[in-house]
Amino acid sequence: MDKNRVRFLPSEKVIEVEKGVTIAEAARRAGVFINNLCGGEGVCGQCAVKIKAGEVQADERSAAFFTDDELRQGFVLACQTSANADLDVEVPLSSRLEGEQIMTGAGEAAGPAAADRPLVTKLYLELPPPSGKDNAADVQRILREIRKRLGWHKYEIPLECLKDLSQFLRQNEWKVTAVIAKSQNYYRVIKIEEGDTTGKNFGVAVDVGTTTVVAQLVDLNTRKVMGVEGALNFQASFGADVISRMISACGKGGMGPMQEAVIRNINELIDRLLEKNPVDREDINAVVAAGNTTMSHFLLGLTPCSIRLDPYVPTADVYPQIKAAEIGLKLGPHTVLETLPSVASYVGGDIVAGVMACGMAEGTELRGLIDVGTNGEIALGNKDWLVCCSASAGPAFEGGGTRCGMRAIKGAIEKVEIKNGEFSYKTIGGAKARGICGSGLIDCIYELVSNGIIGADGKFDRNRKDPRLTVADEVPAYIIARHDESEDGNALVITESDIANLMKSKGAVFAAIKALVDYVGMSFEQIDTFYVAGGFGNYLNIKKAVAIGLLPDMPEEKIRFIGNSSLTGARMCLVSESAFEKSINISRSMTNIELSTYQPFMDEYIAALFLPHTDRRLFPSVTY
Amino acid sequence: MDKNRVRFLPSEKVIEVEKGVTIAEAARRAGVFINNLCGGEGVCGQCAVKIKAGEVQADERSAAFFTDDELRQGFVLACQTSANADLDVEVPLSSRLEGEQIMTGAGEAAGPAAADRPLVTKLYLELPPPSGKDNAADVQRILREIRKRLGWHKYEIPLECLKDLSQFLRQNEWKVTAVIAKSQNYYRVIKIEEGDTTGKNFGVAVDVGTTTVVAQLVDLNTRKVMGVEGALNFQASFGADVISRMISACGKGGMGPMQEAVIRNINELIDRLLEKNPVDREDINAVVAAGNTTMSHFLLGLTPCSIRLDPYVPTADVYPQIKAAEIGLKLGPHTVLETLPSVASYVGGDIVAGVMACGMAEGTELRGLIDVGTNGEIALGNKDWLVCCSASAGPAFEGGGTRCGMRAIKGAIEKVEIKNGEFSYKTIGGAKARGICGSGLIDCIYELVSNGIIGADGKFDRNRKDPRLTVADEVPAYIIARHDESEDGNALVITESDIANLMKSKGAVFAAIKALVDYVGMSFEQIDTFYVAGGFGNYLNIKKAVAIGLLPDMPEEKIRFIGNSSLTGARMCLVSESAFEKSINISRSMTNIELSTYQPFMDEYIAALFLPHTDRRLFPSVTY
Repeated sequence: MDKNRVRFLPSEKVIEVEKGVTIAEAARRAGVFINNLCGGEGVCGQCAVKIKAGEVQADERSAAFFTDDELRQGFVLACQTSANADLDVEVPLSSRLEGEQIMTGAGEAAGPAAADRPLVTKLYLELPPPSGKDNAADVQRILREIRKRLGWHKYEIPLECLKDLSQFLRQNEWKVTAVIAKSQNYYRVIKIEEGDTTGKNFGVAVDVGTTTVVAQLVDLNTRKVMGVEGALNFQASFGADVISRMISACGKGGMGPMQEAVIRNINELIDRLLEKNPVDREDINAVVAAGNTTMSHFLLGLTPCSIRLDPYVPTADVYPQIKAAEIGLKLGPHTVLETLPSVASYVGGDIVAGVMACGMAEGTELRGLIDVGTNGEIALGNKDWLVCCSASAGPAFEGGGTRCGMRAIKGAIEKVEIKNGEFSYKTIGGAKARGICGSGLIDCIYELVSNGIIGADGKFDRNRKDPRLTVADEVPAYIIARHDESEDGNALVITESDIANLMKSKGAVFAAIKALVDYVGMSFEQIDTFYVAGGFGNYLNIKKAVAIGLLPDMPEEKIRFIGNSSLTGARMCLVSESAFEKSINISRSMTNIELSTYQPFMDEYIAALFLPHTDRRLFPSVTY
Repeated sequence: MDKNRVRFLPSEKVIEVEKGVTIAEAARRAGVFINNLCGGEGVCGQCAVKIKAGEVQADERSAAFFTDDELRQGFVLACQTSANADLDVEVPLSSRLEGEQIMTGAGEAAGPAAADRPLVTKLYLELPPPSGKDNAADVQRILREIRKRLGWHKYEIPLECLKDLSQFLRQNEWKVTAVIAKSQNYYRVIKIEEGDTTGKNFGVAVDVGTTTVVAQLVDLNTRKVMGVEGALNFQASFGADVISRMISACGKGGMGPMQEAVIRNINELIDRLLEKNPVDREDINAVVAAGNTTMSHFLLGLTPCSIRLDPYVPTADVYPQIKAAEIGLKLGPHTVLETLPSVASYVGGDIVAGVMACGMAEGTELRGLIDVGTNGEIALGNKDWLVCCSASAGPAFEGGGTRCGMRAIKGAIEKVEIKNGEFSYKTIGGAKARGICGSGLIDCIYELVSNGIIGADGKFDRNRKDPRLTVADEVPAYIIARHDESEDGNALVITESDIANLMKSKGAVFAAIKALVDYVGMSFEQIDTFYVAGGFGNYLNIKKAVAIGLLPDMPEEKIRFIGNSSLTGARMCLVSESAFEKSINISRSMTNIELSTYQPFMDEYIAALFLPHTDRRLFPSVTY
């Protein structure tokens, strides 16, 4: 078959591919990462690459995303273009998945850390040697000692722990350490070690996010976090959001690459944690992972294909405890992996973890939680009841669907201010501006509407004189960074279409919150604390997020960032066996409102497509 | 290294072995089976072979076992002799493990078959397809249906059943069969099959005996036995009894060959069962094995090395449920294997099975059970209490330790009678006499003592004139088959030493029964039924066994053969999940009396070294 050589710049990676293979696919095979927000559908424009040499078979979609000048320079969409000859392809910084700021800081749990045993516990046993009067089987000698310490539960000792137990006990003069994992139905002895090894008991908590994967190394004895590492989810090369990845996994690509990608992620993070900490790999006895339902399915290799199809049914909501090695994690053969349970297809273990992290199910206080990414997931409740829902927010808050949108990585404009008519912005890392990330876009809209540059309908005031007002591709736009301030020499703008997209996103999120609060017959005032987790949480200006109508108009002190609550919840379940049990109870008792068929949500959504809202009484503090 | 070629006759099998390798080991490697009762210690004389050509390095032990004439003919002990040159070795019929009558007939269970589900049950599920109003996860959709049918238990669905569940359910239009195994702590879905396959649910019950392995194919729906196959335990080439095999397994030989041998046994039996019955291998969903504690350890690959050492501690008494494929059984990856629990090192799952088979733990009736092999295991009790013990009977009842002893195979003298001064005998299969098996030896002693040829002390009446009285190697002996009646042209005799050995064996067994009955403060009269299981049970003349003082003097109708009760018990646990649970309760609640340190047993043993007993009041029916 005809093959073409594709060389990627600046990495100089080269790959040979068959005719018809897209540049995006070639990049994936070469190990060159290219943004792929829409999953190769040619609609997000995030995979722009520049053909430096060679001839391509381009799709007409590319024309819609680039100016004539860019087209002349050789810009194409990598996902829509294949090689007609040997190629040199430059991957611009904006299309590369790298250096993104990853939220690794899981906040401290709001609820008190449970005072019980970790998911895997170690017991040092000094067993009485057998005698004529006491010649119980070795396994009973161990179990009766364990029962004395842990109580009369059901226990299992699997065959692999029994095989050489007889010599092992005698060689070690009946002084051994039992490593015991709590599973849903019983305790299982997963390993028996010589002497007293109780001092070495470690675990890894993992947040398997759609965008990033973060792992914490935890000392299960002290419950202290020893280190944390994060990385972009390698699955990103199959699509930025869960929907595109599901399409890929359920199409010809199959599940395999998707599972392998996240396993590679976690293995690399564990490698890094072990390099930096004085911990032996075989002393990692447990891993607890939290992720949305799709991520959890990918992690465990469960087909996710029904999740995205009406009526949105996952394979599993509660996942079996497995051996970590079973799915390819490079850990001891005894190490167990638990995955936090999901509530529904679009309310996953990450939200259950968040509910745990903010202590929602603990007291009578009414707490709300929102986690905004491409989906906005919302939970609400207290110890007596829990409800949740999920609304598709679109990619706008994550840098997709807007002309100059980008993720919250170096060079992204994260803050924008107009003060006394003076326009200013701030980029992540203080670098030259490369694009605008979610928090920057929210700032933009707030500043534009509060300074009268756009109206409550998101349209520019066409009568206004402002040197920053411009037109981009026949759409009114506002210059955020001038061409001489930007990294690539092109001005960064926000267009009227961008604003419309953002208003849809914030409208969906707010409508979901409102519908959920209404569903339980409450009002915003009754919410004691409203937690904002994950995504852009750490960079968001709450006041502005409220003022554009994204978050409900509550006193600022009632809204709290909770950081990576998925990671916090996973860690809680790692250090406390009762926390893990609790997570299952939470997942079972939480009522999920399916918004796609819930008319009040539709009505709320339409009403929320204004700044801040069609019903200003909902936003009494907003003064513009 | 110097190698010698060893050719075995009549099989013509040839093997090359290093210098120093014994003929017994060469035979094992060549796949030629040679008796090995003592495990290669050179003390049983059962591995006699004839060197037809070539020079050997013989041990002095051989001289003790053969007459000068035999030595001239080239007889040596295979376990003590190695080749000094290329050899032709003839293996006489008497040394070959073949054609033994194997007890495959498990009697009907005395207790009523439990009316509950088999160990693995199948449920045909017609699931309601998901809808907007009912979009529970696939796994919950299955579990709630299972719960409706089996009740609110703990359930597990392992990862392998979940992976492709999503498509599988939809492809099969929500009509599937769940294959569900009961384990100690929960129910586990082990497989999900398309459509309604409830009609095909099979299991295999296995009696893993020290001498023979027997397997039954059972229809788990009808509880009917479809077929039964038996074979000699391939482990026999490592030693005839559990002690020699433990020595081999815990020495340089290691566990591996021992486990492989019994797995090969079971695989071959299953092959034969599947050849003869219209059953697919993948429809065998469960295997239940029963064996003594050592056999169970070998089966599962558990080190048995502490079993034979004071204070006699096994690795495990209750064994984990495992996948049959995990230990090498050629069955589906889902097929489960349960092993009946043991009570102690020398009271194993075979006795627990026997207790189940005779219904001992069911009613208020007092029942006794004896299983005589090289060990005699005895259990006694009713639904309220159970006691047991084990006494080493030695190899006499299994053809070892006596001059002309052999197993109960073709050509063995199984019945002996002296009627009106006329001597007669009967061989198994009506063949020429090759030796005397256990039941024949018991008959011999009974006939000799009741006809005054030997006294109550087992000594020959030296004044008696009887053409059959002779001397063998300077020991008084009695001719059972004349040289012209025997297969090899040598007379078959029973010597005074043989009789002494047999009296020790019967004395140990009776003393154990007596000690156990005394221990619970009962008398023989209070025993309602006394069951005789396994070993020589089927060939034994009960009246004569009582008359020599082996079995207690009870009315004949109270003593019942129960056949292979180990197999019966295994089958009961296969067809009834509650039976398996019951077996664990039995193993836990049975009190084992350790006879080796129990003085009353020692006293009883000394008292029992007479015919029938020093205390004749114990044997009122005995008239000689």
